[in-house]
Amino acid sequence: MLKSIIENSENYQPGLSIDCVIFGFHDNQLKVLLIKVPHSETWSLPGGFIPIDQDIDTAAVTVLNERTGVEGVFLRQFSTFGKIKRNDNHFGKEVLKYLGIDPEKGKWLTRRFVTIGYYALVDFSKILPNPLNRNEIVEWIDHKEVPELILDHREILDKALDTLRVELNLMPIGYNLLPEKFTIPELQKLYETILDKKLDRRNFLRKITNIGILTKLDEKKSNVAHKAPNLYSFDKEKYDEVLKNGLYQGW
Amino acid sequence: MLKSIIENSENYQPGLSIDCVIFGFHDNQLKVLLIKVPHSETWSLPGGFIPIDQDIDTAAVTVLNERTGVEGVFLRQFSTFGKIKRNDNHFGKEVLKYLGIDPEKGKWLTRRFVTIGYYALVDFSKILPNPLNRNEIVEWIDHKEVPELILDHREILDKALDTLRVELNLMPIGYNLLPEKFTIPELQKLYETILDKKLDRRNFLRKITNIGILTKLDEKKSNVAHKAPNLYSFDKEKYDEVLKNGLYQGW
Repeated sequence: MLKSIIENSENYQPGLSIDCVIFGFHDNQLKVLLIKVPHSETWSLPGGFIPIDQDIDTAAVTVLNERTGVEGVFLRQFSTFGKIKRNDNHFGKEVLKYLGIDPEKGKWLTRRFVTIGYYALVDFSKILPNPLNRNEIVEWIDHKEVPELILDHREILDKALDTLRVELNLMPIGYNLLPEKFTIPELQKLYETILDKKLDRRNFLRKITNIGILTKLDEKKSNVAHKAPNLYSFDKEKYDEVLKNGLYQGW
Repeated sequence: MLKSIIENSENYQPGLSIDCVIFGFHDNQLKVLLIKVPHSETWSLPGGFIPIDQDIDTAAVTVLNERTGVEGVFLRQFSTFGKIKRNDNHFGKEVLKYLGIDPEKGKWLTRRFVTIGYYALVDFSKILPNPLNRNEIVEWIDHKEVPELILDHREILDKALDTLRVELNLMPIGYNLLPEKFTIPELQKLYETILDKKLDRRNFLRKITNIGILTKLDEKKSNVAHKAPNLYSFDKEKYDEVLKNGLYQGW
């Protein structure tokens, strides 16, 4: 696919790419979708280029869909990364040769690239990591055990995580990361995992209830030994309203 | 200058620009630095291109310095704008001809541009709007009375303002917008102007004091009829600490 892009590089915005940090929540871990670089121990964020006839936001949706197969998920631009040497020597002559790319055409790829970072929150249970070909390895990896990443992808991931932590104070998060029905302890665990700290149970319950986005269901969690906790779902209408207007009234 | 950039376009990142929303506070107004488009009733944000050998953040600092003559001010990237048609037909053949630019070389300028938005907070009193040539008109304009802007600059300005309002909840703001010594009512007025709403005097005093970034000076505001209010300054060390760690502890 990279080859076909380069051979038709006039159809893409030059020197500009997109990288997506895709977060999922599973087993009390905040996981990130990563792609293994062939014949290397390093990994990369899923990314892509920007078709000349697509808005950058649309191009980001395309990258996300390609990799996760889901549509309509939470996806936000968070920062653009443009240090001069960020992709220096990344695609050397050997790599182009390996990919079977004409060195003259390959120049498009070897020039300086600025990349726009997007982050996505997806429901882990609905997504099967999607390799673009059978040699590609795509995996969910705990954000605390991320292996070595190419280029400045570590910086991009860290910045996405910082943004997520800040935005937790500004808007409700959870709708996109949890299954439809969940318990308060599960929601609290999500917050604790993202913030990487323990929260007081009663304080959390009070704060999250005050937002007014939860619906208590007439159902209890099954498969639980005793004192089964209540199940909740998000009131999507109220959730969207809070998402739009912001959580924190502040000043 | 545009001409020289285009004639040396290989020295610049293609299809990528920078636009700066420069905010200043004066006469109880939040003002924006704008440039008049020659022979037109429209205005634009100060902007520029990205030298191939400069980080995008450095290029943004250059744009800001050129226009304001000040260094070391508060400058942050906030969003990248990349709708496909955003600069369609902006530089037509007539404009290139008017600028004396060879149409072949001018192609660099007429292609699709994605732009990275930065916003700056500057001390109004220290800045003299700086026209790059004597035909250029550069002015501080109240953000509530901004005239028609070119391209998507209105959208960029609105987004910068939204960001500023959100960030008011996350970090201290004022150091860059106020003179060294100020009164609490002046600081409150700054917050009210940015948020576009009245704040309760006592609540504001309590909240702003709790942050712990203010130093009460042994000085009163002069030229005030009676009950002269106390002067304050920011404790720069504490201010920077809060700026770094974030204001709102949240969850």
